[in-house]
Amino acid sequence: MNDRIREILSWYSSENPGVRTNLARMLNHGRLGGTGKMVILPVDQGFEHGPARSFAPNPAGYDPLYHFQLAVDAGCNAYAAPLGSLEAGAAEFAGDVPLILKVNNHDVLNDEHDPISAVTSSVEDALRLGCVAIGFTIYPGSSERTHMYEQLRELTLKAKSAGLATVVWSYPRGSSLSKEGETAVDVVTYAAQIAAQLGADIIKVKLPSAKVELAEAQKVYQKYEIPVSTLADRVSHVIQSSFNGRRIVIFSGGAAAADDQVFDEVRAIRDGGGFGSIMGRNSFQRKKEDALKFLGTIMGIYEGSVK
Amino acid sequence: MNDRIREILSWYSSENPGVRTNLARMLNHGRLGGTGKMVILPVDQGFEHGPARSFAPNPAGYDPLYHFQLAVDAGCNAYAAPLGSLEAGAAEFAGDVPLILKVNNHDVLNDEHDPISAVTSSVEDALRLGCVAIGFTIYPGSSERTHMYEQLRELTLKAKSAGLATVVWSYPRGSSLSKEGETAVDVVTYAAQIAAQLGADIIKVKLPSAKVELAEAQKVYQKYEIPVSTLADRVSHVIQSSFNGRRIVIFSGGAAAADDQVFDEVRAIRDGGGFGSIMGRNSFQRKKEDALKFLGTIMGIYEGSVK
Amino acid sequence: MNDRIREILSWYSSENPGVRTNLARMLNHGRLGGTGKMVILPVDQGFEHGPARSFAPNPAGYDPLYHFQLAVDAGCNAYAAPLGSLEAGAAEFAGDVPLILKVNNHDVLNDEHDPISAVTSSVEDALRLGCVAIGFTIYPGSSERTHMYEQLRELTLKAKSAGLATVVWSYPRGSSLSKEGETAVDVVTYAAQIAAQLGADIIKVKLPSAKVELAEAQKVYQKYEIPVSTLADRVSHVIQSSFNGRRIVIFSGGAAAADDQVFDEVRAIRDGGGFGSIMGRNSFQRKKEDALKFLGTIMGIYEGSVK
Amino acid sequence: MNDRIREILSWYSSENPGVRTNLARMLNHGRLGGTGKMVILPVDQGFEHGPARSFAPNPAGYDPLYHFQLAVDAGCNAYAAPLGSLEAGAAEFAGDVPLILKVNNHDVLNDEHDPISAVTSSVEDALRLGCVAIGFTIYPGSSERTHMYEQLRELTLKAKSAGLATVVWSYPRGSSLSKEGETAVDVVTYAAQIAAQLGADIIKVKLPSAKVELAEAQKVYQKYEIPVSTLADRVSHVIQSSFNGRRIVIFSGGAAAADDQVFDEVRAIRDGGGFGSIMGRNSFQRKKEDALKFLGTIMGIYEGSVK
Amino acid sequence: MNDRIREILSWYSSENPGVRTNLARMLNHGRLGGTGKMVILPVDQGFEHGPARSFAPNPAGYDPLYHFQLAVDAGCNAYAAPLGSLEAGAAEFAGDVPLILKVNNHDVLNDEHDPISAVTSSVEDALRLGCVAIGFTIYPGSSERTHMYEQLRELTLKAKSAGLATVVWSYPRGSSLSKEGETAVDVVTYAAQIAAQLGADIIKVKLPSAKVELAEAQKVYQKYEIPVSTLADRVSHVIQSSFNGRRIVIFSGGAAAADDQVFDEVRAIRDGGGFGSIMGRNSFQRKKEDALKFLGTIMGIYEGSVK
Repeated sequence: MNDRIREILSWYSSENPGVRTNLARMLNHGRLGGTGKMVILPVDQGFEHGPARSFAPNPAGYDPLYHFQLAVDAGCNAYAAPLGSLEAGAAEFAGDVPLILKVNNHDVLNDEHDPISAVTSSVEDALRLGCVAIGFTIYPGSSERTHMYEQLRELTLKAKSAGLATVVWSYPRGSSLSKEGETAVDVVTYAAQIAAQLGADIIKVKLPSAKVELAEAQKVYQKYEIPVSTLADRVSHVIQSSFNGRRIVIFSGGAAAADDQVFDEVRAIRDGGGFGSIMGRNSFQRKKEDALKFLGTIMGIYEGSVK
Repeated sequence: MNDRIREILSWYSSENPGVRTNLARMLNHGRLGGTGKMVILPVDQGFEHGPARSFAPNPAGYDPLYHFQLAVDAGCNAYAAPLGSLEAGAAEFAGDVPLILKVNNHDVLNDEHDPISAVTSSVEDALRLGCVAIGFTIYPGSSERTHMYEQLRELTLKAKSAGLATVVWSYPRGSSLSKEGETAVDVVTYAAQIAAQLGADIIKVKLPSAKVELAEAQKVYQKYEIPVSTLADRVSHVIQSSFNGRRIVIFSGGAAAADDQVFDEVRAIRDGGGFGSIMGRNSFQRKKEDALKFLGTIMGIYEGSVK
Repeated sequence: MNDRIREILSWYSSENPGVRTNLARMLNHGRLGGTGKMVILPVDQGFEHGPARSFAPNPAGYDPLYHFQLAVDAGCNAYAAPLGSLEAGAAEFAGDVPLILKVNNHDVLNDEHDPISAVTSSVEDALRLGCVAIGFTIYPGSSERTHMYEQLRELTLKAKSAGLATVVWSYPRGSSLSKEGETAVDVVTYAAQIAAQLGADIIKVKLPSAKVELAEAQKVYQKYEIPVSTLADRVSHVIQSSFNGRRIVIFSGGAAAADDQVFDEVRAIRDGGGFGSIMGRNSFQRKKEDALKFLGTIMGIYEGSVK
Repeated sequence: MNDRIREILSWYSSENPGVRTNLARMLNHGRLGGTGKMVILPVDQGFEHGPARSFAPNPAGYDPLYHFQLAVDAGCNAYAAPLGSLEAGAAEFAGDVPLILKVNNHDVLNDEHDPISAVTSSVEDALRLGCVAIGFTIYPGSSERTHMYEQLRELTLKAKSAGLATVVWSYPRGSSLSKEGETAVDVVTYAAQIAAQLGADIIKVKLPSAKVELAEAQKVYQKYEIPVSTLADRVSHVIQSSFNGRRIVIFSGGAAAADDQVFDEVRAIRDGGGFGSIMGRNSFQRKKEDALKFLGTIMGIYEGSVK
Repeated sequence: MNDRIREILSWYSSENPGVRTNLARMLNHGRLGGTGKMVILPVDQGFEHGPARSFAPNPAGYDPLYHFQLAVDAGCNAYAAPLGSLEAGAAEFAGDVPLILKVNNHDVLNDEHDPISAVTSSVEDALRLGCVAIGFTIYPGSSERTHMYEQLRELTLKAKSAGLATVVWSYPRGSSLSKEGETAVDVVTYAAQIAAQLGADIIKVKLPSAKVELAEAQKVYQKYEIPVSTLADRVSHVIQSSFNGRRIVIFSGGAAAADDQVFDEVRAIRDGGGFGSIMGRNSFQRKKEDALKFLGTIMGIYEGSVK
């Protein structure tokens, strides 16, 4: 294990060796293994948005085995999915790629203003499926957030005692936030902080805009002239807000966008000190050879072989 | 065991041999045993709709032993019913037909806009009654869905660890869906996907209409020209949406209809790659000899002896 | 152990020796150790108000290790923070300063009129992290207070049986109180009494104003001419209301204020018989050397070396 | 993952994906990763024989970190040790080498004729320390064997449900066996069979002699002319006796011997279809550079680069 | 915390912060606080040998409060005693001295050849009494040792998860050992190793003689010329045998002896790299002022102020 990975693991000195081992498994796996950067493939959109919206652009993705193979072939650090998807391939791909069991999920057949995900699987499932971590989504800003934080607390305590790492998707959403506010820089950094405080080992947030949503926060951003004009500035501010860089923070790509825009975003994550990307729809909604090329470019940017 | 059944079981490689054994028991039982197709007799309508609505058309059905015998005589792959029905005949018919304990149930004495079923029996009951599987209904679209998914998660974990298979009835319903939306093709395929993600071994859905309910989905169905014009197309799309054919999906017949219409639907299920039918009211609400003939025709369509 | 500490501990004679030991650890630690006075550093504002509002004034505070070190260097009696902050440094600072795990937390991304905090960590967490106490916020006046009191009851029972002390932040808030009413003297003393009745070992309240909020209370304050005109009077009345001085009550500093005002408040706490201060934003939102000087002055006032 | 590893994993199709993942982690780690052969470093002799007998020949071995580093530097597939040894280095070496927690241990301060090991750690310990497997010793032939088998049963059930593999050291010993009988070929193959029957994923036995111990067995070996004259014959017979090659069987090196003798034994293991060696005293009781050369030769024999 | 204490704590990186905190509490308490050396007062002789044999020499010792006060006044790092003794004074002395609950005990009313202690208290007791650690005696060499190791395993797992340290008294005894063998250097080092492997954070053994008891060990001690002629040599060998100095090992004083002999032994412990003494009968079986002088000299030797 190289010094950078040791340094990252040193931030988790309150965790038992099992959690640290599973963090190391992700950090040392795949093309970016050992760099301290991560690209994770998440495929929970079948549950979150429905199958056609997720897989019609590249129908090979209807098959859960496709995504295991994509994560392996692209050299991703880990593959994250709900229970059913992992059950469909965990035996065939045992040992091929670190798995993250997404233990809660939300669908849009009844899309509330104040959403909460259902807890759809458990720490026991993660262990029997050979996973390195559980993944959990919180919606800060939802009136249901208290319940979500309490579910996460119980799962985290249990996961950590069994040596599993915890990955928290922290997505602000709810009736008290404007649509733009969900990605406002003060809101995203707040969401990252909350995830860190809840004991997340790895934090996943969206890339923030330059908007500052909350009135109390606006005063502070102006008074202290917190730099948020460039995306790299904002990434840096997210990292700072996540225990000053002592927690792994990765960024989601969101809906499909032009490749050059995505690559620029990855450069900003790299330049701002982010730890990587979690890249779902942009990866699996194109043909596999295109996806491999696309993910290869992203990994190249992180490792420095692509500018 | 023939190759087709082996192929089907291979999709369940993350399940323990107990679950696979119980799936094999259903797949190899009855007239369709070994074909990879299934016809299951479900009789939970006494609870769901009340006794007279269910059994007055054929009063023999008031007797729970009648349905066991019907399933045996018709050569069904399995018989599914609530706790009391199974307790009434499981001893007499021990070993005669695979049993599925329907562990949650809903009545219409208080019919909410956003329904949730009561959990009325348990994995322990299923074991003591000699069942091969538990059955569970979810109502995606209901504001109570989160609670249902969480109930199912706990039951599934327990059932699987005891070697029982899990059959999920996934019926979209709730205040945010139109009546037609409940069988819209985007909604039914979404419901099938959710059941698969929740760990269902066998998924039961209604036959979908060509309607696309959700605005976000309509854009996708148009853009990618997903074929949904024929019923066989739509069945095929459901199968695709259930892990690309790697999960057993069966279709319910719904309320009584003209026989020819039912047979045409069965042909569409067969042509679309569906795995069979779960046929309740259409079976037990007619005299037994008619029912046997009716089910015989359906099985004939599935096995190819009837066109 | 000196006589004053023994006297204080004698008020907790129904608690087991573990709880008394942990109270003693706080009372005997740091610069004020042995005086019966306490200054506690709390840093939960990252969760409660968001990271930029909390740490932009002194960006060193984004790093959770900074606060451990500040508490150590200033000679605070204890350091209180949520789960993530303690996990980030508990191993490195093991044994350096008594830790209080703040087991519930509230954020302002969805700021209700009747707030309730989420329970974000547990007694098990407090034990594995080596804490001396759990901390819990109640909002008397919130329509959710019943749920909070009941959560506290369960946590307190569990914490005490494991020898952990309980610190209760008692902050009146809710739709039935005016903004000024939250710090009215009758309301604050009521909140202190409720915390004491709920089994708090240490009570934290805000400094009360001279306002009397509740109509029924106004009659009494007038009839019995309860002295509330000076801050020291009101502190004394809070102490009286907290089992007549038989519970440790400390006061929060609130938002940043002019230093002289803070020092005057500390003198009033001292003169009124208060047990100390919990001093967050006023401490960590200035440069470290200023913070050490600031906290040094406060401790000097409590110990008598500063007038 | 290559075809040979997939083939090996296919023998474990009744295990959940977690167990298969942990088997894959061992099979794919280190210099022999991917060959289907394994060399495991076991260091439990401090407990089994005492510290001086174990570590005086190479005093660096008194330090538990030495053995972690030796396993890493030599490229072993795994490192096996009791609780204390793993606790001493699991955090520092998190992710560097697969760990096997030896959950029972025996000492010779009271060396019974019919030995039984104490259960000294647990599945929970294995999980919190990040292990891939538990290790357990049985002494077939001991009058205490029944108790050992029953302890193993409980541990195996728990380990497997948590996705951990089970490694069984099967060492015939007890008042009813002669000293030579402990390594008689009929006894060693019997011991291998018992381990396989008890659910061992990996079986560790000693290399058998050509002696046939039991009278009833002698008749059979003679009648069927079972070939046991060469060591490779006997290794082949052990493999045959362990589910005809469908379980991983590795062989222990025993006490220090001349290197050429060890290498010849390794060639016999290779030629007889054995899966590798577990090489303790011969490895750590010499200076590290010698140990690396020694283990390098052994791995070379297994991988074919050394004849 | 100074660098030496940090170094010692670094050896316990697999333990949670709670365990490390409680180790720090002992290491930083009393006159030797911060030196890395410890003197612990143990008083379990009332149970182990009977009251008169224990307390008649200094009848003040019949009072359990006497021993708390002695530990406080002498500046011991910790006080260890059985449940009743701690219950008798833990409230009065809360916070005055770190407490170790001796959770198993043995009496001599029925003194077996192969002794086993009774488990007389629990982790829950240790928590409610405010202890920093549990203490447990094992008798390696006893035919009952297996049962003792298994009791310890369960207690250790529970204690560590609650943040308590584990102190193991490892006293070889049993029908297979000669009386002299109980303190033979090979046996004592073996006993220390066993305690370390069982997960002990602190190990307590008797000072070893130069005798080598076991035949197999004699060969090794001769062949490798392990130095055991001086007591300091033997202490050094014990430390080496306890994970090469990475575990805290302290030595018991045994029965009352001439003071100069005890002081010489302490010098040997110091010179051999031992971590301190646990000094019972020699301390409490003399008058208090003598005991304070006696313990003062011992601490002086450890800290270097007495030669």
